[in-house]
Order: sequence, then C-alpha cells, then structure tokens
Amino acid sequence: MYGNIRVELNHNGKTMPNLEENLGFGKHFTAHMFMMDYEEGTGWHDPRIIPYGPISHDPAAMVFHYGQAVFEGMKAFRTESDEVVLFRPDQNAKRLNRSSERLSIPQIDEEFVVAAIQQLVRIDAAWVPKKKGSSLYIRPFVIATEAILGVRPAMQYSFIIIMSPVDAYYEEGLQPVNILVESYFSRSVRGGTGDAKAAGNYAGSLKAQTLAKEHNCAQVLWLDAIEKKYLEEVGSMNVFFKINGEVVTPSLSGSILEGITRGSIIHLLKDWGIPVTERKISIDDIVEAHANGSLEEAFGTGTAAVVSPIGSLLWNGTPMVINQGKTGELVEKLYATITGIQSGKLPDTYGWLLKV
Amino acid sequence: MYGNIRVELNHNGKTMPNLEENLGFGKHFTAHMFMMDYEEGTGWHDPRIIPYGPISHDPAAMVFHYGQAVFEGMKAFRTESDEVVLFRPDQNAKRLNRSSERLSIPQIDEEFVVAAIQQLVRIDAAWVPKKKGSSLYIRPFVIATEAILGVRPAMQYSFIIIMSPVDAYYEEGLQPVNILVESYFSRSVRGGTGDAKAAGNYAGSLKAQTLAKEHNCAQVLWLDAIEKKYLEEVGSMNVFFKINGEVVTPSLSGSILEGITRGSIIHLLKDWGIPVTERKISIDDIVEAHANGSLEEAFGTGTAAVVSPIGSLLWNGTPMVINQGKTGELVEKLYATITGIQSGKLPDTYGWLLKV
Ligand SMILES: Cc1ncc(COP(=O)(O)O)c(C=O)c1O
Ligand SMILES: Cc1ncc(COP(=O)(O)O)c(C=O)c1O
Repeated sequence: MYGNIRVELNHNGKTMPNLEENLGFGKHFTAHMFMMDYEEGTGWHDPRIIPYGPISHDPAAMVFHYGQAVFEGMKAFRTESDEVVLFRPDQNAKRLNRSSERLSIPQIDEEFVVAAIQQLVRIDAAWVPKKKGSSLYIRPFVIATEAILGVRPAMQYSFIIIMSPVDAYYEEGLQPVNILVESYFSRSVRGGTGDAKAAGNYAGSLKAQTLAKEHNCAQVLWLDAIEKKYLEEVGSMNVFFKINGEVVTPSLSGSILEGITRGSIIHLLKDWGIPVTERKISIDDIVEAHANGSLEEAFGTGTAAVVSPIGSLLWNGTPMVINQGKTGELVEKLYATITGIQSGKLPDTYGWLLKV
Repeated sequence: MYGNIRVELNHNGKTMPNLEENLGFGKHFTAHMFMMDYEEGTGWHDPRIIPYGPISHDPAAMVFHYGQAVFEGMKAFRTESDEVVLFRPDQNAKRLNRSSERLSIPQIDEEFVVAAIQQLVRIDAAWVPKKKGSSLYIRPFVIATEAILGVRPAMQYSFIIIMSPVDAYYEEGLQPVNILVESYFSRSVRGGTGDAKAAGNYAGSLKAQTLAKEHNCAQVLWLDAIEKKYLEEVGSMNVFFKINGEVVTPSLSGSILEGITRGSIIHLLKDWGIPVTERKISIDDIVEAHANGSLEEAFGTGTAAVVSPIGSLLWNGTPMVINQGKTGELVEKLYATITGIQSGKLPDTYGWLLKV
C-alpha cells in the first residue's frame, strides 16, 4: 500500500528533554516524523520517516487560505513492563477518514495509518516517557498543499505524523474545574463540520475559551447553535453527567465530535452495569437536577486528560456547584480504569491496546 | 508603525506569464511578496518585501492544526490612462481586522496595511495586466505560526501579501449560472465564524460545492442553519434579487460575510434611486415571486466576478428559471458601472479608487 516506508534516520540526533521533568503539552517533539504526499492522479505516495524538521510550502498553499486540514490526537504509553502500546489507534485512523470525507480530503488506508504510526513510534521509542500518567502524544494531520487560490478541493496534500512526549494532564490527581456555559458563541451546527476534527473548528472556539478564562473558568460548555439549549461538548472534550445514578451524555447530533474516550467510557459503564444513555440533554435538565439534588457528577472526556471533573458550571452568572466541587467516585473509577489499562496495570480485557 | 518596510528585490527575476493570454485565477504569482511577523510582547515587526518564494514552518505550527488563519481578497487595476489603482482597499484592511478579532488574531494598523499593499503593487506594477476585465488579485492573509499543540490563541503569526494577475471572470460577457439551493449542509451559524473571512469556513463549504457541480450547478445558495429557510450567500458571494422593481439582499445576520462589492452595489442602487432593502429573505419568498412572475433578476456579488447573474435556482429538484436564463438589465448596468470605475472609463465619483 503506497509503497514501502523509506526511513532516513536523524543522525544529527535531537536533544531529548528530561522525560522525568516538566514536559508540558505539545512543546517538545521527537527526532523523527512521518510524511507522505498526495497528488491527484498518482494518489498517496512516497511514505517516509525523516528527521523532524521544518516543512516548506508555497505561500499560496491552500491550507493557509481555505483551512483544508484535519487532524487526530492519540497516545502511546510505556507500560509497567516497559512495553510501548497504542490505545485504540484503529479508531483514530477511522475518524481521520471521516473528518477527511467531510472536508473533501482524500482517504488514507486505515491499516496503513496504524502501521505508519507503529513504525514511527518504534523508531522514537526512547521518547515514550515512563513517569506516571505521562505518554507520547501522537498527532497525525493532513493539509492541502496545492498552490492555487481558487476555492475548490486541492489536488495535492501532505499527511504528516509528529509526536510529543507529554505529562499527565493532572500531575497531582484529578482537579475539578469551573466551566462557563456559553450562550453566545457557537462551535458548530448541523450540516457544518462539528463532527469532523477539522482545523477551522478550533480557531473558531478560541474566543469563547478566552472569555471563559476571564470568568475564571477553564473552558466553555457549548450549547447547540439552533435552540441554544442542548449541551454539546465541553471545550475539546465530550461531556457526561451522572444524574440520580444514571449516566447521560449528549447523543451524536452531527455537530459533536465522536470522542474515542467517550466510546470507551460508554463501553466501560455498560460493562459495569451502570445505566448510560446517549440523549439530548438541555441546560434546563441540568439546572433542574442541580436544584433537586440529583446531579451527582459531571465530567469531560478526551485523549489529553482522559477525564476532567467539572466542579461547577457558570450559567447566567450563577455558579452551580457539583458534588461540592470535589472529584466524584465514578469519574475517579473511570480514570483509574482507563489509565490502568493504558499503563498495563490492569488487564486489557477489551483488546484496546496495540503493541508497537 | 512597525518600522520601515525593508525591500529585498528579486534579482533572479521571475518568469512573467503573457499577460494578454489565459491567466486563470490565482495560478501565477508576482516576483515579490510582503511579509511581517508577530511575536507576543514584541508585536508586529520586521515588515519586508522579499522575492516570492516558499515559506517554512515547524510542522507543529498552529495554522496546520487549528486553522487560525484569516484572509482578504482585493484587486488592483490598470486604468485606460495606464495608472494602477486599488478598489476600496481601506474596506479590506478593516474587514481583515474584524476577521482577526473573531479568530483571536492580533490587529494590524489599517493604514499600514494599505500602505504595504501600495508599495508591493508599485514594485510589481509591471504584473498588473491591461487586457479588458483583467486585474491583479491581491491576497493578504495572516497565519498562526507558533509551534505548539495546545489549543489556545497562538503567540506568533505571519502577515503575508501575495499577488496574482488574473483574467476577467467572464471573458465573453456575463454568463448566467445555475445555482443549487443547499438544504443539507450549512456554511455557518450565528455565534460562529461566518461573518469573518476565516480559512475554515471555506474548507467546510467544499463538499456542498462538489455536490452542486454534480447537479450541473456552479455553486450553492446557502440557507441559514437554524431554520433552513432564509437565504445567506451564494458560494463565496453575497446575493441580490430584484423583485417587482425592488432590490433585496439578506441582512447581515452574523453568519454572512459583509462583502465590499455588496456595499458598493447598495450604494450605487441608492444613488440611482432604485429601492434596495436589506432584510431576511426566505426561500419561500423567492418561490412565490418566481411563481407570480415578479422575480426579475438574481445575482451574486464579489471581488472575483464583480457580479454573477443567476440563470436558475435548483430547489427541491425543480429548477426555477430566472429572467428566461438571461443576464438582466440591472446586473448588466451594475457590472458596467463598477468595472467602468475600476478601469477609469467612468469617473470615480465615490472616491473608491486609490492610486498606488
Ligand atoms: C472537539 C473535541 N471533542 C471531543 C474530543 C475528545 O475526543 P477523544 O476522546 O477521541 O480524544 C476531542 C479531541 O480530543 C475534540 O477535539
Ligand atoms: C463567503 C464570502 N461571501 C461574500 C464575498 C464577497 O465579498 P467581496 O465583495 O468583499 O469580495 C466573499 C469574498 O469574496 C466571500 O468569501
């Protein structure tokens, strides 16, 4: 498929940060990257692993003008027995193609994507940190590189994979955050690109995020754009609530990203016999559950943090404190289970891990 | 402001296409480009005009991942008396800042932007074509260049201006096109980025455009995302209708781009004493006007084509033919007036031209 992956090793080396110290998120990059090009007619070709370094484009390259770009985010972990594993990479490869489809970007064979990630991680395996909760964040992305200013799908693309050793999101255990319920800005709408990991979705969300910070909130809780009533996502995470023993999460409406962590959590809950429902959830439902004391927990889910407990929701200027602002039992158990599987501490009963 | 513009001339020259022949749109670029960088703390700095050529970025540059990118589109014309003029560049500089504001990109002094464009056009003045209807298309754009994967506004940007000699959109006079009324996909929604010239808006529109082509339509007519009922834009143009002697165009709802051509046309119509109204227009209004014979003309407006008559609208599988599929009188007069002013054939009574 697409030919053999050519490997050009980085003989100059690359200074590795101390993997035991503060790594931050997406600041340090490994010694190599994967790259492959697409040309209308030829298709994807010249897959290669090369030294990490700048990429050069004509200033008319379409990605700079029309935002034809999609990406993925996933992680490799170093297990307790010093093996390096990927968490559900097939799901990311699938979603990459779904995102590409929406943005008129050519598809890439999913098995090839996973194999390319495996080979790249193998070459830079020394960069997978060992510290508790840390991991190697993997960022596959596709950009339109054709240099022409007409508005139409590009005929040239690059598919690139870069990798960054990252810390645990929560260094000292889960920390509940304040979240602002966003009533003005919209992240997406049906018929739009909200269910794709499209670059432009994120640029449009920055302003609301900045305003949230000004209200001492870590992120926004997006409402649907049509009725400004139904919950969608929290920042770049899916959102869950535990109400009266039942777990609910917004159903995939077409404007919500289908998170892989979301899927894993629904799977776990079902397995544990905890009732979980995907449905429309209005902000009024939450206000009511909060008022009558049945709102037990709330949390975001995503690859970066795994889970992120919500300590309070700021709605119409009033904070609704959830579980006294403390991390709930369920979110704690979900976190322990997923990170336990990822680190090899717990058995991989669902077949979610792939050795590299 | 930002220091003097440093000029490094392209001594290797650049092969100029024959400006009298087929130029296409946005395919050929001039010998020079403008560039200026932003760094948090320092602000915009190092404005320079340099030889046109590739730009190099870290693969983690935020524009590739989060689509933090805005652009403008405007034209320079060679008048009949061989002067080179810009059409309302102050409006583009203003809109660039409005777009940037929405995408959390730092503002740029508007007078500086116009001055930078003027100087760049002066240096590449030989590239402004003379052929009837042709022009030098100017593309200012700002991209986030900081290399970090966290989702937040970048702290480093580049502002770049590139230029391309282009043909008249319609080489042989205005040609009415078929337009598909799009009922599934959405371009934008209130609270989104539709009123900004944000890169991501265009990537999201490609799929609908491709489907329109499959229906033998040049473009789509976007409906609002909320009720899927009110007209927004046609492709990357604003849209106007002449109904029973009155001209109507959708009011700026927050999800529509405020076109500079749109503004110029409203100005001209008022000046001519033709009633023109900005209001909500539903597709039902159009169906009704078509049915009772009062729908006289329909057209799109934008920098690329100036005006683009709509010969038919495909709605629910049925084409509504407008003005027997012929170019209407009003659109013809608007085209003649605007291109007349741009080419210096008509006096610039509104002060729309700026000499370079
Ligand atoms: C908008 C958005 N929602 C949700 C998620 C969560 O998805 P996942 O669990 O696959 O990381 C992400 C990505 O991380 C995202 O960008
Ligand atoms: C989405 C969109 N609408 C309308 C227009 C028309 O704007 P203008 O007349 O300023 O070219 C453009 C740009 O050309 C556009 O990209």
